[in-house]
Amino acid sequence: MEFLVRFETRLPESLSSEQVAELKAAERERAVQLRQSGILKKLWRVPGRRATVGLWEADDATVLHEALASLPQFPWMDVEVEPLATHPQEK
Amino acid sequence: MEFLVRFETRLPESLSSEQVAELKAAERERAVQLRQSGILKKLWRVPGRRATVGLWEADDATVLHEALASLPQFPWMDVEVEPLATHPQEK
Amino acid sequence: MEFLVRFETRLPESLSSEQVAELKAAERERAVQLRQSGILKKLWRVPGRRATVGLWEADDATVLHEALASLPQFPWMDVEVEPLATHPQEK
Amino acid sequence: MEFLVRFETRLPESLSSEQVAELKAAERERAVQLRQSGILKKLWRVPGRRATVGLWEADDATVLHEALASLPQFPWMDVEVEPLATHPQEK
Amino acid sequence: MEFLVRFETRLPESLSSEQVAELKAAERERAVQLRQSGILKKLWRVPGRRATVGLWEADDATVLHEALASLPQFPWMDVEVEPLATHPQEK
Amino acid sequence: MEFLVRFETRLPESLSSEQVAELKAAERERAVQLRQSGILKKLWRVPGRRATVGLWEADDATVLHEALASLPQFPWMDVEVEPLATHPQEK
Amino acid sequence: MEFLVRFETRLPESLSSEQVAELKAAERERAVQLRQSGILKKLWRVPGRRATVGLWEADDATVLHEALASLPQFPWMDVEVEPLATHPQEK
Amino acid sequence: MEFLVRFETRLPESLSSEQVAELKAAERERAVQLRQSGILKKLWRVPGRRATVGLWEADDATVLHEALASLPQFPWMDVEVEPLATHPQEK
Amino acid sequence: MEFLVRFETRLPESLSSEQVAELKAAERERAVQLRQSGILKKLWRVPGRRATVGLWEADDATVLHEALASLPQFPWMDVEVEPLATHPQEK
Amino acid sequence: MEFLVRFETRLPESLSSEQVAELKAAERERAVQLRQSGILKKLWRVPGRRATVGLWEADDATVLHEALASLPQFPWMDVEVEPLATHPQEK
Repeated sequence: MEFLVRFETRLPESLSSEQVAELKAAERERAVQLRQSGILKKLWRVPGRRATVGLWEADDATVLHEALASLPQFPWMDVEVEPLATHPQEK
Repeated sequence: MEFLVRFETRLPESLSSEQVAELKAAERERAVQLRQSGILKKLWRVPGRRATVGLWEADDATVLHEALASLPQFPWMDVEVEPLATHPQEK
Repeated sequence: MEFLVRFETRLPESLSSEQVAELKAAERERAVQLRQSGILKKLWRVPGRRATVGLWEADDATVLHEALASLPQFPWMDVEVEPLATHPQEK
Repeated sequence: MEFLVRFETRLPESLSSEQVAELKAAERERAVQLRQSGILKKLWRVPGRRATVGLWEADDATVLHEALASLPQFPWMDVEVEPLATHPQEK
Repeated sequence: MEFLVRFETRLPESLSSEQVAELKAAERERAVQLRQSGILKKLWRVPGRRATVGLWEADDATVLHEALASLPQFPWMDVEVEPLATHPQEK
Repeated sequence: MEFLVRFETRLPESLSSEQVAELKAAERERAVQLRQSGILKKLWRVPGRRATVGLWEADDATVLHEALASLPQFPWMDVEVEPLATHPQEK
Repeated sequence: MEFLVRFETRLPESLSSEQVAELKAAERERAVQLRQSGILKKLWRVPGRRATVGLWEADDATVLHEALASLPQFPWMDVEVEPLATHPQEK
Repeated sequence: MEFLVRFETRLPESLSSEQVAELKAAERERAVQLRQSGILKKLWRVPGRRATVGLWEADDATVLHEALASLPQFPWMDVEVEPLATHPQEK
Repeated sequence: MEFLVRFETRLPESLSSEQVAELKAAERERAVQLRQSGILKKLWRVPGRRATVGLWEADDATVLHEALASLPQFPWMDVEVEPLATHPQEK
Repeated sequence: MEFLVRFETRLPESLSSEQVAELKAAERERAVQLRQSGILKKLWRVPGRRATVGLWEADDATVLHEALASLPQFPWMDVEVEPLATHPQEK
């Protein structure tokens, strides 16, 4: 089942620039793994914002939550999940 | 996968009271079938409103949509679907 | 450039069921043309609603508007367009 | 009487990881007690969020409030309570 | 248990002034009965609107819903129910 | 004239538990005085929140503001005031 | 006591242009009376809308409601009332 | 002074296609006049909607309102006006 | 041209009570000057809030902005400006 | 393609007044460059706020995002981007 997932990340000002760089590298690495496993299908950037719209596919919302919660920046992400149904024209 | 489904029904004033009675009877009958098939698990009424909160279970959002769209009052229902993940304490 | 386009269609009750059927057939036909021209890339259904989320690609918002306005049901569609930027991980 | 209770927890960054672990353990323990007493009937996780939807049953809103306020994380929870009426089909 | 109930009534323009007068008289009569039974405790008018804020008391939301639905103008009322807990200073 | 006053209190984390206890005691004491003077008529707790709905009576909004601003926790209260008119059925 | 009153008027399309002209004349006449009695102190137009912001003064919300409800266009007005307190600098 | 004016037009279904064509022609003609007088400086279309964002310049909000109200489709337009100040970099 | 200006002030907790007293005195002094110059015509307090509704008059939004930005508390004020047109009844 | 871009800047209180002055100078310098390259066409100030409405032109949302993200104050800007289509009257 596909989900449209929108998230916005606000890292706290208290993190050093090194910590931020490490977090971003770890985030990219985990995203690559989630793409390889087929859960993360596509990401877009919302112009002007530290926000992302993504197309995800998972068996159910529990599996999706575990994938999202495995992202290193998850504690600072505000996430909204929208379930998607197959459109008749896509069948 | 479970979904929290909230809907509010506004039948048009142009329907006769007979048509309304028929629609409501057909709605109840279809709901019984959906309960028997296990898709519709529980309904609550929102006090003071012609609205319902329900717990539904379906393989994915496409199957859920077909169940909702099979309700005779669907053309006059405003529906909101929220995906639910299993809580760790429930495992 | 890609756009996330969300629309919800509310045909007026005054249309006969024949008119509705004709409109829906014309809508499907026009959608096929828009897919063939590459403007319409993917559609999803919002579960429980007469609403659609779609991924569209057009040179700019003017071309996109013309494509949307060419849909036979456009006069009864409530449309929201969100511009999408390429995510660095997709490059 | 049943209530749909939605809460989102934001622990302050100033807590140490030990304090967080203690709080979460105490929270789980209190939740078990509330389930045993029949006030807390079911919890779901909102996918992608540190948020929970729950089905609670209490004599009235005063008893419900006392149960919610007894949760160790209550000072950092944003809680919304919705009263539920029995649906005619459930009788 | 007490509830704060807010409703706004919009009678359709198609009703004759006689029908409106009858409805309003029936509404007042039913309100008197609900006051006598102790369910309706107090009503205020929202200034400038055809809206009312009321304090109601009922065993639970199901009993409250039945009382509200027994009002002759209920089909044209938009109702919002908020559960109230006893404040410690009132004990 | 009566007012429906809703407030939610968020004391800052920087206050010590002693300061919080003193503030709460002072708040209760001031509330007792306001009840005795007839300005504060009734308080309810919003279940699950550090929030209160109250019925207040004052000559006008200026007198009401002075009463609210005299509460020791006022600097940390988010307050909303709604004017109430007498309902014809209450006359 | 002063109130800031905002209203927007939507006369139904079913009224003839004569009925509209009569209503508007009656509205102006009643407004003149309300100004003479001191309840209506000042009106502004919201640019681009059939809406008005006004400064009203009345003993309480009940008197204000009666003044507003005496306007001939009241049945088609959407009204919002905000209570105003005297600012210390105005004393 | 400049204003950002956003409007959305919803002509009623009861108008014949001839009436709509006449209205649209009259609208265009009036817009040309408003451009020539310098009040209307620029229009954009909101993609996917029957809506327009425009840059207008007028001595004050009263003159702007008169210009907007002179548009033949004004009775069916929902208009929002936002005042703009000169940015320091533009001086 | 007149404007309805609403602002809410939240001074940071880090300011000492002396700094707050100085700021408030400077604010009052600047307000007196703005009244004398005719830009600030009237202020009201929103009951229960650290908020103000004011009637301002300025040649345009640029002049108004400069007046607002000259207030010593401006860095901590959340301001909303609404343009007002003259009502036909006021002419 | 043109975009309407709205942003509001909130520099953190922890910055020294020198850092703020440097940031503002760097911001102005970068804005001049973006104007020279034709991406930034026009800026307005929202009266009463630290906010800006701007007209931008870029090949697509990706190029626009890079321009916005190159502004020195970008980490503290809340940005909203709205795509604009050419209005038929402008052709």
